Amino acid sequence: MTIDSRVGHRRALEHDGYRAQVDAVLDGFFDEAKARASRIGEAYLLLWQTLEANTIGGKRFRPRMVMTAYEGLGGERLETAAHVGAAFELLHTALIVHDDVIDRDFVRRGVLNVSGSYRERAQTAGIPIPAAEHRGMSVGVVAGDLALSGAYRLIERSPVHPITKTRLLDLLEEAVFASAAGELMDVDFSLNVSAASVDEVLAMERLKTAVYSFEVPLKAGAVLAGRDEPTVELLGEVGRDLGIAYQIVDDILGVFGDSQSTGKTTLGDLREGKRTVLMAYAATRPEWSEISGCLGNPDLPAEDAELVRGLLLSSGAESFARALARDFANRAWSGLQSPLIADRLRDQLAPVVASVLERTS
Amino acid sequence: MTIDSRVGHRRALEHDGYRAQVDAVLDGFFDEAKARASRIGEAYLLLWQTLEANTIGGKRFRPRMVMTAYEGLGGERLETAAHVGAAFELLHTALIVHDDVIDRDFVRRGVLNVSGSYRERAQTAGIPIPAAEHRGMSVGVVAGDLALSGAYRLIERSPVHPITKTRLLDLLEEAVFASAAGELMDVDFSLNVSAASVDEVLAMERLKTAVYSFEVPLKAGAVLAGRDEPTVELLGEVGRDLGIAYQIVDDILGVFGDSQSTGKTTLGDLREGKRTVLMAYAATRPEWSEISGCLGNPDLPAEDAELVRGLLLSSGAESFARALARDFANRAWSGLQSPLIADRLRDQLAPVVASVLERTS
Repeated sequence: MTIDSRVGHRRALEHDGYRAQVDAVLDGFFDEAKARASRIGEAYLLLWQTLEANTIGGKRFRPRMVMTAYEGLGGERLETAAHVGAAFELLHTALIVHDDVIDRDFVRRGVLNVSGSYRERAQTAGIPIPAAEHRGMSVGVVAGDLALSGAYRLIERSPVHPITKTRLLDLLEEAVFASAAGELMDVDFSLNVSAASVDEVLAMERLKTAVYSFEVPLKAGAVLAGRDEPTVELLGEVGRDLGIAYQIVDDILGVFGDSQSTGKTTLGDLREGKRTVLMAYAATRPEWSEISGCLGNPDLPAEDAELVRGLLLSSGAESFARALARDFANRAWSGLQSPLIADRLRDQLAPVVASVLERTS
Repeated sequence: MTIDSRVGHRRALEHDGYRAQVDAVLDGFFDEAKARASRIGEAYLLLWQTLEANTIGGKRFRPRMVMTAYEGLGGERLETAAHVGAAFELLHTALIVHDDVIDRDFVRRGVLNVSGSYRERAQTAGIPIPAAEHRGMSVGVVAGDLALSGAYRLIERSPVHPITKTRLLDLLEEAVFASAAGELMDVDFSLNVSAASVDEVLAMERLKTAVYSFEVPLKAGAVLAGRDEPTVELLGEVGRDLGIAYQIVDDILGVFGDSQSTGKTTLGDLREGKRTVLMAYAATRPEWSEISGCLGNPDLPAEDAELVRGLLLSSGAESFARALARDFANRAWSGLQSPLIADRLRDQLAPVVASVLERTS
C-alpha cells in the first residue's frame, strides 16, 4: 500500500483542483463526526481527531482515479465525483489502519499511526509497554471500523440517483471484499514456510491493493459518468493491469529505489521479509538459499542488503520483475486504445501508464 | 454483549417465524458470499465459512427487535423487516468479532470464535503459540470488517423505497458510531487506575451495547413501518431505557446468576475484573478495598468469589443495581404507555420489560 510515495504519479496526475475538492468533502465529513463525537465526550473526540490526522497529507490517489475517469468520460459535476472519491480515501484509511494493526506497525511514513498515537498516549500516562501497545492496537481496530463505516456513509450521502448510488455501494463492497481476500493471503504468506509463487504474489497484490486503488475507483468514475457496463468493465480491466504494474514497480523500488525520491528506506522490505514478485522469482533460482537467509532479519546490515541486491540482479529476479511490470503496463495501454475510451480520458491516463514504463526501462 | 443468554427473552419473544425469516436472509447472504469467495480461493471460502459459523445459533435478538417494532406498528411485509433485521445481526457479529480481538478472547459461549478457530488451525499446522494467536487475531480483524461491510450490503439490498433506505443506512451508521464510542470507553476503563463511576459505566454500556441492540433496531422497525419521527424517537428512548436495564441485569447475573440457566459461569466477570454498575457502586463503599483485591485475578478461587458476593450484598451494591435496573425498566414501561405506541406493540414488548422486572424483584 505504498504506491503513492514511490511512483511519479504526482507529476502524472497533477491537478490541484481535485485535491481541494476531495479535501473539502473530507473536512465536512470529519467536522460533522467530530461535532457528534464531542457530544459523547472528550475521549471520543480525540479518537476522531486522530483518525482525521491519519488522512491528512495523503496523495488522494484513489479519489484522483475516480475523478480522472469521471471527467475524462465527460462528467461535469466534479463535486459529486469528489464526494465518491472521498469515500475511497476513507476506505484506504480503514484498510491501512487495520493493516497496521495486523502488522503490529505503529508508524507509517515516519509518522505515528492511530495505534502508535494511542500507544504513545498510554505510555505517557505511565502504562507499561505491552499494555500500551495493546491499547494502541485496540483503538486501531475501532478507528478502522469507523473509517470503513464512513466510506459507506459518504457514498450514501452522495447527491446521485438511487440507481447510481446502489451501483456505487456495490462497487465499494466489491473493493472491501477483494481487499479482505488479499489481506488474508498476505497473512497466510507470512506464516508459510515455502515461498509464495509469482502468480500467488500477483493475486495477493491485486486483491489487497490494486482492486481498491485502481480497478474499482476507475469503475466508480465511469458509473458516475453514466457509462454502460462494457465501458465500466473495460476501465476495470485497465485499472487492474495498471494497478498490478504499479505494485510490481513498488516492490522493485522497495529494494532498488532511490530512498531520497521514494521517501522510504530500501532496507524495510528486506528486513520485513516482504513477499514480493522479486522474491517469488528468486525462490526458483539457485541464489535463493543465500537470499532467503538474509530476509526477515530486522537488523539486516546495509552490506548484507547490498549483497541481496546483487543476487536479485544476478539471478534475473530484478529484470524479470521489470519485464512483468512492463507487460502489465502495456496491457493497460492496449486497453486504453479501445474506442470505448474517450480521447480525453486516454490522454489523462497516459502519463500514469508512462510513469510505470519509465521506471521499468 | 451477553444479553441473549442470560435473560428470559426467549420466552418473551418466542416467535419462531421471525427466526426462520432472518435465517433465510442470512443463508442467502452467506451463500452468495461463499460462491464469490470460492472463485478467489479455498482459503477465502474457509474464512467466510468460519464467519458464517460464528453467526449460527445466535438468538437473533436484534432482528427480533426490528421485526417486533415493525409488526407491532402494523407492518405487513415481514420479509423486508427480516432483511433489515439480518443487517443488525451481521453488525452484532462484526462487533463481537472485533471485541474478542480487543479482549484477546478466543472462545465465545464455549465455542471457538473466528480468532480461536484460526489460532487452532495455525497450531495444528505446527505454528508456535504467539504466531498462531497473532494469526487468529489478524483474521478476526479481517472477518469483522467483512461482517460490518455485509451489514451495509444487506440494508442496501433491502426492497424498500430509497428514502427509507437512506434513513435505515443512517441508523446503521448511528449504531456503529455509538458502539465505537462505547468500545473506546471500555478500553479506557480497563486501563484506568481509578474505578469508573456509575454514570460512566451506564454511558459505556448504553453506547457499547444498548444502542445497537435495542435503541436502533426498534427505531429501524418503526421507520420501516412508515412511522413519523416522534414515534421513531419515542421507541428509541424506550429501547435505550430497556437496553440499559438489560445490561444492568446482565451485570448482576454475571456475578449472582444461576450459571445453569444463564449458561455462563458466575466467576468470569470477577476474574476478568469487568467494570460493571455493581463495581462502580461498591467502589464508593468501605468494602471496596477487600473487593478490589479479588478482581481481575484469572485464578480467583470459588471461595473468594463467594466472599466478594457477600461484600457486594452487604455494601448495598447488589440492591442498588437491582433498583437501578427496575428504574430503567419502569421508565421504558412508561414510555410504552404513550398513545404513539400501538396496543399491539405494547403487548409484544411488555413481556420483555416484565422479564427484566422479574429478574430484579
